Amino acid sequence: MTGIVDVALRAGVAKSTASRALSGNGYVSPETRERVERAARELAYSAHSSASSLATGRTSTVGVIMPTADRWYFAELLSGLQQALVAEGLDLSLFGATAGSAERARMLDHALAARRFDGIIAVCLQPGAHELERLAGTGLPLVSIGPFSERADTVTIDDVVAARVATEHLIDLGHEDIAFLGDEPDADRFSFGERKRLDGYCQAMIAAGLEHRIRPVPTRSTIPEAFATAAALLADRRHRPTAITAVCDEAAIGAILAAQRLGIGVPSELSVIGIDDHRYAAMFNLTTIRQLPKEQGAEAVRLLRTRMRDAEAPLEHVLSPISLVARASTAPPREAR
Amino acid sequence: MTGIVDVALRAGVAKSTASRALSGNGYVSPETRERVERAARELAYSAHSSASSLATGRTSTVGVIMPTADRWYFAELLSGLQQALVAEGLDLSLFGATAGSAERARMLDHALAARRFDGIIAVCLQPGAHELERLAGTGLPLVSIGPFSERADTVTIDDVVAARVATEHLIDLGHEDIAFLGDEPDADRFSFGERKRLDGYCQAMIAAGLEHRIRPVPTRSTIPEAFATAAALLADRRHRPTAITAVCDEAAIGAILAAQRLGIGVPSELSVIGIDDHRYAAMFNLTTIRQLPKEQGAEAVRLLRTRMRDAEAPLEHVLSPISLVARASTAPPREAR
Repeated sequence: MTGIVDVALRAGVAKSTASRALSGNGYVSPETRERVERAARELAYSAHSSASSLATGRTSTVGVIMPTADRWYFAELLSGLQQALVAEGLDLSLFGATAGSAERARMLDHALAARRFDGIIAVCLQPGAHELERLAGTGLPLVSIGPFSERADTVTIDDVVAARVATEHLIDLGHEDIAFLGDEPDADRFSFGERKRLDGYCQAMIAAGLEHRIRPVPTRSTIPEAFATAAALLADRRHRPTAITAVCDEAAIGAILAAQRLGIGVPSELSVIGIDDHRYAAMFNLTTIRQLPKEQGAEAVRLLRTRMRDAEAPLEHVLSPISLVARASTAPPREAR
Repeated sequence: MTGIVDVALRAGVAKSTASRALSGNGYVSPETRERVERAARELAYSAHSSASSLATGRTSTVGVIMPTADRWYFAELLSGLQQALVAEGLDLSLFGATAGSAERARMLDHALAARRFDGIIAVCLQPGAHELERLAGTGLPLVSIGPFSERADTVTIDDVVAARVATEHLIDLGHEDIAFLGDEPDADRFSFGERKRLDGYCQAMIAAGLEHRIRPVPTRSTIPEAFATAAALLADRRHRPTAITAVCDEAAIGAILAAQRLGIGVPSELSVIGIDDHRYAAMFNLTTIRQLPKEQGAEAVRLLRTRMRDAEAPLEHVLSPISLVARASTAPPREAR
């Protein structure tokens, strides 16, 4: 049987280099990795991953826990995680299922007991369910995307600031009657930072002396559900707000579609701002606070790699960048023009 | 150290049952599985998965190759695969990256060489790239979702029939000037069955004596790209079709949004039909051909399980069900009323 030494000889590198290239553990230049992989293919070298794993104690697999892939943010993030993990020679083992479900609990137990992973990236875990703490308790390298933890490296945007900047943009345009679309009582199903975004909206309203106008409109934050909620809100002409801060772009797009359905001009009669810069944002001319989930994924992998190399490295809490993208869904209110 | 025997004793089951329950290989009733898992937790039993894998030759992991998660179809399918795999005690290792990319090739090599999987589910692989054949050549249990293979079990809808039924619906309403939105020259990036859907549209047109009216309008099939393409098509009042068969609901929704933007009534001036029954279909009152990606995922896992148990079982090619869902985006053309 072909051994790692044969592969190293053929590739013209040291055995340790060949081993690093094929295991994905440790740095190898892309060119060297290519050469070693080609040699391994040509020699039909096949490391038995289980044997290799027993020897090194490593699985070259990272467990990713994510509530859903069926939302723009999660799909983008997953794509970013995947690209970054592949570049590090790591496989991605995906654990979905709704937070709090029996399925998810079983997967966690199973995954943790079986030590299948070199590390774990936990996306938007529900803080109330103590899943982060359980994961941190395993001693495995752990990165949280979204919720903050004292026991794990974290990547997140500043949700408070995002919603505050969005709302301040509307206030700067002259709006006073601004509703917040998206505070859903059981939104912590996703732990999307919704609560913090509501806080940011309230902070902006209070700072502008508009605390009596604070008006959260609860809705699940998918396009169809926000569409239905916004349609009900906007149909009542007497209490119609002049502007909406939406918890995310999907909620904002639902609001724009509802306005279209009711013949309400955006932005002439209603301004709408979101948070995300969703792939549909440009099509709807949506003004929004841009975040970059793919880069958040890459950042999480960087943190995980650092932690895998050095369990004692200081904890890092990364605030991912955001920016205001001004398109045409926001304008001064009618009476102010 | 706690052994599997201790777990079996505590759970009051045979050692082989405890082993089946914890490994996910072989049938165990849900109640028994719960009992064994509880016992394992209470005893802090931790099977070293690599050792267990060496002993059984099994990894309890299924590799899933999927071009993207950022489309309704793929996200739903992924969710269905995940639920079905979890129910079988199998982990899901996700391989994304665009078809034909160097990244994907490296992942395939890596994955195949390292024998990390008990089986593979390949979603919408590009037939031209011979990835299916390479995967089939490994001898691992393999199920293809989408493209047909002589060497793998397959799950798909009949794309020809779906588009034919959609187009026949428009013809039955009295339409003759029907465009097909979505034939994109490099659509086999996704191998979505676009070509077959175009065939189905052509078949319906030819059968109705409308071959001179066949009119494919190439576009990528995302909402924003179909929106832009449809806007250009519909802006030309003299050559505007009275109806559109869209390759999928995302393309259909793009067309409806373009019509709205141009002030063209749907269905009064333009009928639109899609294929999918996307989560946004109801919101847009979209008439469509429904398919059930979650069930396709569950079906694929069933086929894979059968193949894992018996490599010699006859090949199965499953046509997943479709149905016409008539909403309000289709109606007789103006002149016919």
